[in-house]
Amino acid sequence: MAIALGEIAVRFGCELRGNPETLVDHVAPLESADSGALSFLANPKLIPVLVNTRASAVVLEARSAPSCPVDALIASNPHALFARIAALIYPTPPLRAGIHPTAVVDPSASIDSSVEVGAHAVITAGARIGPRCLIGPACIIGPQASLGADCRLIARVTIEHGVQIGERALIHPGVVIGADGFGLARDADGWVKVPQVGSVRIGDDVEIGANTTIDRGAMDDTVISDGVKLDNQIQIGHNVFVGMHTAIAGCTGVAGSTRIGARCMIGGHVGFAGHIQICDDVVITGKSAVPHSIKQPGIYSGVVGLEPVRIWHRIVARMKLGVRREHGRRERKDDNDE
Amino acid sequence: MAIALGEIAVRFGCELRGNPETLVDHVAPLESADSGALSFLANPKLIPVLVNTRASAVVLEARSAPSCPVDALIASNPHALFARIAALIYPTPPLRAGIHPTAVVDPSASIDSSVEVGAHAVITAGARIGPRCLIGPACIIGPQASLGADCRLIARVTIEHGVQIGERALIHPGVVIGADGFGLARDADGWVKVPQVGSVRIGDDVEIGANTTIDRGAMDDTVISDGVKLDNQIQIGHNVFVGMHTAIAGCTGVAGSTRIGARCMIGGHVGFAGHIQICDDVVITGKSAVPHSIKQPGIYSGVVGLEPVRIWHRIVARMKLGVRREHGRRERKDDNDE
Amino acid sequence: MAIALGEIAVRFGCELRGNPETLVDHVAPLESADSGALSFLANPKLIPVLVNTRASAVVLEARSAPSCPVDALIASNPHALFARIAALIYPTPPLRAGIHPTAVVDPSASIDSSVEVGAHAVITAGARIGPRCLIGPACIIGPQASLGADCRLIARVTIEHGVQIGERALIHPGVVIGADGFGLARDADGWVKVPQVGSVRIGDDVEIGANTTIDRGAMDDTVISDGVKLDNQIQIGHNVFVGMHTAIAGCTGVAGSTRIGARCMIGGHVGFAGHIQICDDVVITGKSAVPHSIKQPGIYSGVVGLEPVRIWHRIVARMKLGVRREHGRRERKDDNDE
Repeated sequence: MAIALGEIAVRFGCELRGNPETLVDHVAPLESADSGALSFLANPKLIPVLVNTRASAVVLEARSAPSCPVDALIASNPHALFARIAALIYPTPPLRAGIHPTAVVDPSASIDSSVEVGAHAVITAGARIGPRCLIGPACIIGPQASLGADCRLIARVTIEHGVQIGERALIHPGVVIGADGFGLARDADGWVKVPQVGSVRIGDDVEIGANTTIDRGAMDDTVISDGVKLDNQIQIGHNVFVGMHTAIAGCTGVAGSTRIGARCMIGGHVGFAGHIQICDDVVITGKSAVPHSIKQPGIYSGVVGLEPVRIWHRIVARMKLGVRREHGRRERKDDNDE
Repeated sequence: MAIALGEIAVRFGCELRGNPETLVDHVAPLESADSGALSFLANPKLIPVLVNTRASAVVLEARSAPSCPVDALIASNPHALFARIAALIYPTPPLRAGIHPTAVVDPSASIDSSVEVGAHAVITAGARIGPRCLIGPACIIGPQASLGADCRLIARVTIEHGVQIGERALIHPGVVIGADGFGLARDADGWVKVPQVGSVRIGDDVEIGANTTIDRGAMDDTVISDGVKLDNQIQIGHNVFVGMHTAIAGCTGVAGSTRIGARCMIGGHVGFAGHIQICDDVVITGKSAVPHSIKQPGIYSGVVGLEPVRIWHRIVARMKLGVRREHGRRERKDDNDE
Repeated sequence: MAIALGEIAVRFGCELRGNPETLVDHVAPLESADSGALSFLANPKLIPVLVNTRASAVVLEARSAPSCPVDALIASNPHALFARIAALIYPTPPLRAGIHPTAVVDPSASIDSSVEVGAHAVITAGARIGPRCLIGPACIIGPQASLGADCRLIARVTIEHGVQIGERALIHPGVVIGADGFGLARDADGWVKVPQVGSVRIGDDVEIGANTTIDRGAMDDTVISDGVKLDNQIQIGHNVFVGMHTAIAGCTGVAGSTRIGARCMIGGHVGFAGHIQICDDVVITGKSAVPHSIKQPGIYSGVVGLEPVRIWHRIVARMKLGVRREHGRRERKDDNDE
């Protein structure tokens, strides 16, 4: 959708240095932008790219504006303003209210008349779907589950019984919310399943990436707070608590009963032990293991990196050598290798 | 469902210290339990919590009973007994035998009349479904696949052709069993796919968590033994063998042809190399890499933990320094970094 | 399907040492092969197994042929030739052209008459499906998405709007292609979603394993090049580029805007940082973290392995000790542990 820079400036209360009638109708990176494109500059290191841009307009900080060869929208946080303008240029497709004839809807489900229910969706007994929700194709909403207003379940989302989701959730395909947690009691002849009778409560404005799983609690609920953003293929164990506005990148796993504070930023492929507490405002770099609680805000890492394999093997051998000697262990080759 | 403590004591042959007519109708943690709640104490460290509990009854060891302010059920393994009682209080919902009108069932499939087949399920040619199975909504059962009695596929489970599953399997949404293994032969101009003509055999009493994947074998079968418990988002490669009663936590991956023994406990986010053997009774802490076979039972770890990022960078630099010097390598910045 | 060795020799132009009328009708490993089985020997270390095989024929290098007790097919690359022969013995099931009555197909979708569309599939407005494609049960093809000829989507694959896939793709269940990338701008009161308006372009001859996710680009496209092979449960972030014939094993995650070169071999459970470049012909061992770019072809590793837990704790303690002392930090127990 084409929008004039003047309208943008008024709507967001930002300064425009340029022609208010210039139109932008798509977004593009600075280096490949063409006429009609809106771009942004968040990192001043990219000013050499900015000076050659062919975008129609760029969102940037005031200090970068003198280097901008085209119309400029001034923002203290260019990335955030750019995101808001992009949402205008690319509006969410309007809902087609109604229930697809192939959807299976239990008569006891409560579904607002403004809701779109897609092909092959299944909405079971006692489920409640708030106004203006999108229940995309092949989604399954379990018994007594509830969604607040304006949720968007893109496709093939599974919400199990009793799960409660707030307003404006955005949930991507393959997500499973409310499957049983991994609760087992060891017994003489194997494992006894511990019934998982808690549920999952998800706040407002939560985004959940494709194929992420959030288990139901064992006795109490698993809780995802307002504004949490989860990337793809994340595993949230039973009775985990994730605090407000925390963002977690893909492939991270959080073991049961761990509590992550507010405004944390967790990298991808991080593994949290169970039953630990991470305080507010913690940043953890991708691929780290988190075996214990963290009580001080800050940036944490546990990533050893990588090297050419022969060098790496010497690094690891040296790392282990002294301790092995003390334990009088023979070389690993003798006891655990082929 | 409400149950009297006396009935519990009789049914499980355990000692009751308290009123046999006391009813419990739900479970709750010691600290938040209220009237009607059954709780348990497995860890004597929590006795300070026990003494203040408002539960109606607590399952615990005899040595902890004197500290229990309410009715007590005595067990040598309180967690396991608690799990069994909880299964009585929260019985599995009864099946609604029959095939949902939107399910697509091949006439050559053999489905016991006691089976519940949910909405939009697909059961293909030659599949066999044993008595009292639940085939939840949107499950797909491939050609010639078979399930034993009393399996529960909650929803959206994909079982590919020829996969064999024993009795009492519990399989959560998003699971894929029997997709092709990652079998490739390198060739001058890329990769040649190696047809994956083995299958998957799964024993009795296996639980498989949401979005876990178990690949079919290349030539022989992939095997999951009786009593194995798999958490969410686990990847089991082709021709892997997992021994009886082994439990594996979420996000762990097992590369092809690796053999894991019986009664192992594998943490989350563990990565196993291919073609290795792990003996019985091995415990591996979460996030470890397992690059070689393990021949001795015991507890193994390979987790380095994490630290504030500046301290961590110095630890890693020191770890690598000596070896780098020997190799006369310039600083990494000079050859591999930006 | 049974095939005579003579026919194989002619079709693939390989030398046969044995009876051209010998039939093979299945494949099996050397050690368990029986009459009618075709096997192969790629690793000369297995010659002791070869000499006892009961296979009807073995594909192997000329140098191993003298040890072969049965008919031999000679190849410079036995694994690749074996794979090609196996594809003859186990041909892909023929398509049943047509649209299943339970599939939901938008009238504006363009679907070649040779295509098989399975039960409960959903093909939306403007989608284009090339000749001889299999759209398995419960697949969802989003608006304007396109598939080239001879693609096989086994079941339950989600392709979102505008995604372009080349010819001969093989895509396993649970795959999600084109979900939103994890694009967020931090703001005073949380996160602002950055609309993800790029798409995904996938080349020819790509295989994508079960439950793998490939996100759409933020502004430009995410690109998977010709001949790329992705295992299960891989996460490809927005704007990632994967070069031709690169193979990636299961559970690996690639953060946004990272570029992986051609002919790379990436192990399982590897984590790539975002915005880095990996040159062509790089091998990375499983479980490594890749925090920075790699500019030299070669084999890289960052795996520390594992040890019995008491030994391991001493190794890690020693690794951290000197640096901790310099920072005057108290023992971790005092500040971050319980």
